[in-house]
Amino acid sequence: MKDIQNTQDTRNVDIQKVGINNIDLPMIIQRKNNTDQVVSGVARATVALPRNYKGTHMSRFVEVFNEWRTKNLLGVDIKGCLEKIIKKLHAQSGEIKFTFKYFINKKAPVTKLAAPMCYECSFKGQIYEDKYKFILGVKVPVTTLCPCSKEISEFGAHNQRALISVKVSYPETEHVWIEDLIELIESCASCPLYSLLKRQDEKYVTEHAYKNPRFVEDVLREVVVKVRNHPVITEYEVECEAFESIHNHSAWAYKKEIKS
Amino acid sequence: MKDIQNTQDTRNVDIQKVGINNIDLPMIIQRKNNTDQVVSGVARATVALPRNYKGTHMSRFVEVFNEWRTKNLLGVDIKGCLEKIIKKLHAQSGEIKFTFKYFINKKAPVTKLAAPMCYECSFKGQIYEDKYKFILGVKVPVTTLCPCSKEISEFGAHNQRALISVKVSYPETEHVWIEDLIELIESCASCPLYSLLKRQDEKYVTEHAYKNPRFVEDVLREVVVKVRNHPVITEYEVECEAFESIHNHSAWAYKKEIKS
Amino acid sequence: MKDIQNTQDTRNVDIQKVGINNIDLPMIIQRKNNTDQVVSGVARATVALPRNYKGTHMSRFVEVFNEWRTKNLLGVDIKGCLEKIIKKLHAQSGEIKFTFKYFINKKAPVTKLAAPMCYECSFKGQIYEDKYKFILGVKVPVTTLCPCSKEISEFGAHNQRALISVKVSYPETEHVWIEDLIELIESCASCPLYSLLKRQDEKYVTEHAYKNPRFVEDVLREVVVKVRNHPVITEYEVECEAFESIHNHSAWAYKKEIKS
Amino acid sequence: MKDIQNTQDTRNVDIQKVGINNIDLPMIIQRKNNTDQVVSGVARATVALPRNYKGTHMSRFVEVFNEWRTKNLLGVDIKGCLEKIIKKLHAQSGEIKFTFKYFINKKAPVTKLAAPMCYECSFKGQIYEDKYKFILGVKVPVTTLCPCSKEISEFGAHNQRALISVKVSYPETEHVWIEDLIELIESCASCPLYSLLKRQDEKYVTEHAYKNPRFVEDVLREVVVKVRNHPVITEYEVECEAFESIHNHSAWAYKKEIKS
Repeated sequence: MKDIQNTQDTRNVDIQKVGINNIDLPMIIQRKNNTDQVVSGVARATVALPRNYKGTHMSRFVEVFNEWRTKNLLGVDIKGCLEKIIKKLHAQSGEIKFTFKYFINKKAPVTKLAAPMCYECSFKGQIYEDKYKFILGVKVPVTTLCPCSKEISEFGAHNQRALISVKVSYPETEHVWIEDLIELIESCASCPLYSLLKRQDEKYVTEHAYKNPRFVEDVLREVVVKVRNHPVITEYEVECEAFESIHNHSAWAYKKEIKS
Repeated sequence: MKDIQNTQDTRNVDIQKVGINNIDLPMIIQRKNNTDQVVSGVARATVALPRNYKGTHMSRFVEVFNEWRTKNLLGVDIKGCLEKIIKKLHAQSGEIKFTFKYFINKKAPVTKLAAPMCYECSFKGQIYEDKYKFILGVKVPVTTLCPCSKEISEFGAHNQRALISVKVSYPETEHVWIEDLIELIESCASCPLYSLLKRQDEKYVTEHAYKNPRFVEDVLREVVVKVRNHPVITEYEVECEAFESIHNHSAWAYKKEIKS
Repeated sequence: MKDIQNTQDTRNVDIQKVGINNIDLPMIIQRKNNTDQVVSGVARATVALPRNYKGTHMSRFVEVFNEWRTKNLLGVDIKGCLEKIIKKLHAQSGEIKFTFKYFINKKAPVTKLAAPMCYECSFKGQIYEDKYKFILGVKVPVTTLCPCSKEISEFGAHNQRALISVKVSYPETEHVWIEDLIELIESCASCPLYSLLKRQDEKYVTEHAYKNPRFVEDVLREVVVKVRNHPVITEYEVECEAFESIHNHSAWAYKKEIKS
Repeated sequence: MKDIQNTQDTRNVDIQKVGINNIDLPMIIQRKNNTDQVVSGVARATVALPRNYKGTHMSRFVEVFNEWRTKNLLGVDIKGCLEKIIKKLHAQSGEIKFTFKYFINKKAPVTKLAAPMCYECSFKGQIYEDKYKFILGVKVPVTTLCPCSKEISEFGAHNQRALISVKVSYPETEHVWIEDLIELIESCASCPLYSLLKRQDEKYVTEHAYKNPRFVEDVLREVVVKVRNHPVITEYEVECEAFESIHNHSAWAYKKEIKS
């Protein structure tokens, strides 16, 4: 059978990224406590395609994913998987990204009753010009309580669910656990969220949020201060979106920085 | 050219609904104040297909929509559009549904500054056994403030954005304006939402919500009491989902009733 | 602390369904081959609330889910979980629904290379008037190739991804495996989908689809004929949506039936 | 009333972007044919916030949008709106983005019957270091027919809906019409999509796609060649995602370039 993909292309256009997108994959993630978690991931994998080749070979991406999905995934395995893809596709550079829902057993603040709380996380690996870069992403839902509303009102203060999205990079020789990054982020909000709260807990989180009012600007700055001071993080991107309880739109703040 | 759709089918299966789905259409909606609003709609249109026909003619649905889209749509025009579809498809029964974002210029509670506020609405028309039924749907975002949190906490109370979805039916001879149904629904929450709020307004909505705590159960019941007492509404379906600011899941309540 | 939820309500409104929605949960599903699969589920759980009670107790739903999530879920466990919820909430009736992505290792048609293929599935249990009902749902992506396009064109025929959504009920004493229901549904399309296809496989699926043209009406009828003839299924609901490759809208067909 | 936002912040964190997100707005777009189109937009507006200020004033963004929404929007008005926002917020830089569904009356290829076809478009304006940049975005759904499948199969070829997303920049003194950019993009696929196709048209598009097989790589390169040769475009970003009819995942290609 003819291999159309391998034929010559004369349009003189290098393609920066080509591959497969939105493929569902079961994955195994290593947890901080040394156990594993099976998660349901959605992946993208791409390579760069030089101008003289007509096409890439899409099925090979699936073959490598299939081979890798029974391994425990961490930053180091993401690199192995990406290197295999680049080799199998005869490419020079490439990128893979997995997005998945990760569960942490979280204790209520007063009763200490535990239940799984879900966080959307992502692993991204890139190889460009022979250099590997790993990016860990977490999306952490929290409460924000408005400082202005608290200040100007006789009683109460509007509060709402907000989503803090953080992406961080660090050297290959280091490691940041999802669990630790989430804890860092949750400490920056008016209050963390929980799956299971009894009445004593509800009293606690209500009063805790009221005592810690935060604009999206405050949340963003608190996170920035902590990741700036983090010993291994070299780059970060932080976004905070508050789904305002008094509007049908969001308050939103964003910052990206490469630490020098 | 052969008309495959018109050939005989021998599998002995009547199809209840067949047609087109998720088609984008510009539409003109008549407003309460006698002006028009051009909206961006998404539509589904279906007819019933008897067991002996292989297929329906999908392009005819688009032709009727195209013909109808320059008219002012209200319940009565939905009927005309549906009758035309049923006739053109040689069918006995059918159904059309339009979902669209509708804007109302809404004044802030204290400063009275106005800005457009958006509501997702829907028109649904059905003809089964020669009987026409029209269903008006609105989704109204509001604030709910938790009565339990207020009661047990020394200060503050968790509150959040919630979405009240209401569908109502009424006789062909009657009419319910979107504007009036939204107003009825907003009065049932801890507080309505606004696009534009200055500081005096923010103080007002914060305190108003605090003085009017509502569970999803309360919101649902308030709406039910009002639609039950409404002079022309004959059937209703009410759903309230509160995107809890202390959890990453929702509190949810639902009721459906045909008034006797 | 005062239990506001337990106070009296005088608005005279029974609530049909009240509880929690969109909660993420890790779950264990029993597979046909006697192994387990950990999946990431999204759940809703509700009970009926009599008119005289102000509110339900939302945290108890989470407590029951938390207790049940380490069990192997099948129809029979859904019933146990639902009965526990109803008991713990002092309710008469209730409903739970889990939606999750389920992976099946699927072999390519010619090379027989296997890779995981993902299907969105759901388990729903209802108890109303002391009667338990279980509903299994699967969403199966397939290829449909248009019979009309094939007939009228000199070469080629438009084809596209379509999604067949099927819900079935059967008595408590019976069992239908997800794997078997998916196989039944895939046999009704122009061709099933695969995660991994090498060139020989691609030739096969292209030609197989061309030899088996199907409108959404055909796909729906094929499924209906098979579930009608299924020995244990008592009720079904079938929907087929084809994401037309020549339009930006879908062709859509639907049928629901209670077998007598 | 105290203006909390105006108080001092000592955390030493500049915020790159802060403002409102996901606000629904009715907008007026100027069409190529000199008429207007009212569209339903979703907007984000942000400014940069220096390290010494605690917060921005969210309501002012809404006030400017409200003032601007009755104007005919084009690149030049986007600049005016953004300048007003930056001025009103006492900021140095800022960004606004509108996303909206735009309808073009499109004729079928043979019968020439016309019906509205919908495209998701976006306008983005940025001012950083006193320099204005405008970015026009369009998402164009098309058909792609697989060259490999056609080559290796005795008859037929898998084809599917694909989405080509293109963003382009050009100098303030120039203008690119949405209509022209869409036409350029549609010419790069195996076949454009249509809302209304009668049988003669369906024969045409089926055969046209079969005669013009395109991988996502081909589509991407065709678009790149055309925007590279475009007289006024200075920067572009092109993405093509094909929702494969034989897989449940996509083939995907991407390229970004600043013309030198």
